[in-house]
Amino acid sequence: MATDSRASIITLTTDFGGINHYVAQMKAAILGICPSATIVDVNHQITPQDIFQGAWVLSQVVESFPDDTCHVVVVDPGVGTSRPIVVARARGQFFVAPDNGVLSLVLNDGQRIDWIRSLNDLNRWSSRHSRTFHGRDVMAPVAAHLMNGLSLDILGPLQPDLNVRLKPPELKPQQAGISGSVVAIDAFGNLITNIPLAALPETNQNLRIRVGDTANPLEIQGLSGTYADQPTGSVIALIGSNEMLEIAVVDNHAASTCQIDPGVSVKVDWLDAPLP
Amino acid sequence: MATDSRASIITLTTDFGGINHYVAQMKAAILGICPSATIVDVNHQITPQDIFQGAWVLSQVVESFPDDTCHVVVVDPGVGTSRPIVVARARGQFFVAPDNGVLSLVLNDGQRIDWIRSLNDLNRWSSRHSRTFHGRDVMAPVAAHLMNGLSLDILGPLQPDLNVRLKPPELKPQQAGISGSVVAIDAFGNLITNIPLAALPETNQNLRIRVGDTANPLEIQGLSGTYADQPTGSVIALIGSNEMLEIAVVDNHAASTCQIDPGVSVKVDWLDAPLP
Amino acid sequence: MATDSRASIITLTTDFGGINHYVAQMKAAILGICPSATIVDVNHQITPQDIFQGAWVLSQVVESFPDDTCHVVVVDPGVGTSRPIVVARARGQFFVAPDNGVLSLVLNDGQRIDWIRSLNDLNRWSSRHSRTFHGRDVMAPVAAHLMNGLSLDILGPLQPDLNVRLKPPELKPQQAGISGSVVAIDAFGNLITNIPLAALPETNQNLRIRVGDTANPLEIQGLSGTYADQPTGSVIALIGSNEMLEIAVVDNHAASTCQIDPGVSVKVDWLDAPLP
Repeated sequence: MATDSRASIITLTTDFGGINHYVAQMKAAILGICPSATIVDVNHQITPQDIFQGAWVLSQVVESFPDDTCHVVVVDPGVGTSRPIVVARARGQFFVAPDNGVLSLVLNDGQRIDWIRSLNDLNRWSSRHSRTFHGRDVMAPVAAHLMNGLSLDILGPLQPDLNVRLKPPELKPQQAGISGSVVAIDAFGNLITNIPLAALPETNQNLRIRVGDTANPLEIQGLSGTYADQPTGSVIALIGSNEMLEIAVVDNHAASTCQIDPGVSVKVDWLDAPLP
Repeated sequence: MATDSRASIITLTTDFGGINHYVAQMKAAILGICPSATIVDVNHQITPQDIFQGAWVLSQVVESFPDDTCHVVVVDPGVGTSRPIVVARARGQFFVAPDNGVLSLVLNDGQRIDWIRSLNDLNRWSSRHSRTFHGRDVMAPVAAHLMNGLSLDILGPLQPDLNVRLKPPELKPQQAGISGSVVAIDAFGNLITNIPLAALPETNQNLRIRVGDTANPLEIQGLSGTYADQPTGSVIALIGSNEMLEIAVVDNHAASTCQIDPGVSVKVDWLDAPLP
Repeated sequence: MATDSRASIITLTTDFGGINHYVAQMKAAILGICPSATIVDVNHQITPQDIFQGAWVLSQVVESFPDDTCHVVVVDPGVGTSRPIVVARARGQFFVAPDNGVLSLVLNDGQRIDWIRSLNDLNRWSSRHSRTFHGRDVMAPVAAHLMNGLSLDILGPLQPDLNVRLKPPELKPQQAGISGSVVAIDAFGNLITNIPLAALPETNQNLRIRVGDTANPLEIQGLSGTYADQPTGSVIALIGSNEMLEIAVVDNHAASTCQIDPGVSVKVDWLDAPLP
């Protein structure tokens, strides 16, 4: 798989708290097996053991990576228990992670999954068999061997689907509108929702966005094209870089300014829809 | 350009707040086009939208990189507006950034600029055309294609100079002295000034450095050779690793200890200069 | 040394405060000399000038890296003074660091050291000769030249041992027990001790672990197999991924919850040892 003309890319997403010696040990394990691997850090600051956040971050990056990239996700509160570790092939890429839901957004119902295998021998992959660091002793080596063109049978038996699927935040079409929620705060403090561009009316004209369930929700009229369309301090709604509705405060940190956390409801109404 | 004996180095400087999924998407875009690229993170913690800080950080690293390195800088409050994106060749290296001043310290008046081109079709570089993430959809792909030896005409028309130049902090020679200012605080809390070694008298003897405009400026006599020359807690002045005057507190964080921010004035007097 | 089938791995451990332009300058220096180097960041957030912490972090990762990896450690409060910089070969790997104790845990008494050389000309390695950044001007270039197969004589004379050795935290066998201390807090807040698995009785049954010297030490009965063995909030002891005893709070940050810092004593008693 590693040829002159193609990188063997392995990405890492963990809750290890930054680029530290735990991350370095995973990279060492990879490079010892696949010296030509190109390793990309996606994020190591997932809130510890927040499986949904890890799943969401992974779901944001997959589309950008070339075919045959292998994504390793270590948000693994059950490490060392009987929870299985799975390897999957879907969307032209590979995934290695605990079967605890962390792959269930990126391998959601709408995606064809080519195969999923459950590792049947965790001690095969390293001379070290820690019960607390399967990222280093199992998942990193498996990813590196995949890049080397490992025969897939060695991994373990096929399984029909992920065993654990997170319930994603609800997205409910309504009469002339849709309701969803804030699913993440990005590094700029922007509020990323689960409402896709595709769910909005084509013209995007005359939308009203309300954030929060309280008597006085934050209310925004219309979509901006980009962050700099309105004066500093304006609360705006726009379509973010992954084609999801997001709420921002121009030149400011929306989550802090508006005191909004993930989970808060977001409703969009199209005001110029013809009356029923 | 990518040969066995030379790395295709692309550096990234952004205000994305750390190594996160936005940074990963830029790396994915690069590796999909130029799999052999070696990507170096310069800094992703530029204060959001602080163009001067991004410009200054870039200016600190360019000299260290080998020829043909490509530097991508995404500090881009105007993303999605009509501000142009430029590609430049100077100092043996390539630069890709918005034309908002962020290249104006590294491509300053004293530097020969081989050429500057303004991108004339932002939608050519990716299948995704976000208005809010030109780092991923335009600048990263352009850098990767440059490493692949792209024909330069494809970029867009030549332009004679950067359209936006930051006014750099003033440096004023004075009678037997010079005045400048603190331009950055580094990770150790050292105060980096804009006063170069070359502007000081050759012997460096008997200098008086005063920091701050108040009635009681911080005053330092003479230059130290290195951080460990004086006892813990001493306030010292020395020539930093990029040959600029800096102020440090031995084994301590000078900016916090002395409560000094970027912008504060710094005056150096050579006390043993012959009377006029 | 750099062949098609083996990576030329150089690791970086520093107290530079994160991945910033100082780190980037070291990488630039490496890539200018050894373009095929694979650079792995171990940790750049060592507490400034904390030589023990740097030494400990390095000691945690060496075993994971393949043969001929070169580890560069820049925790160097004495930079620019007469303290020597050494290059060592041991455990199948290379080490480049100031001879200030930072290599003394990884090259401890139990390890065969193949050779140690002291650099005899710091100005040979770069066109820049800063007195404050030997990481960039000396150590990074030396590591890169080592990867290129530099003739070792050029480095400088052999020396029999490190000149500076840290006194590692004491580990004292006691009657039916052992006493040591907390040596590090990891990113999850777990308390890592200096008590190795090998020092505990083989069955690990019926151990009592006491943390702290006070009248009311934190007391734990028995070892858990992994973090998820006990309910949320439980204080547990277990064998960590590097086979050292560690103390954790399930789903929580033990160091904050229990207010314990590095240096606090840890005593283990085997309660079912036969009476003497």
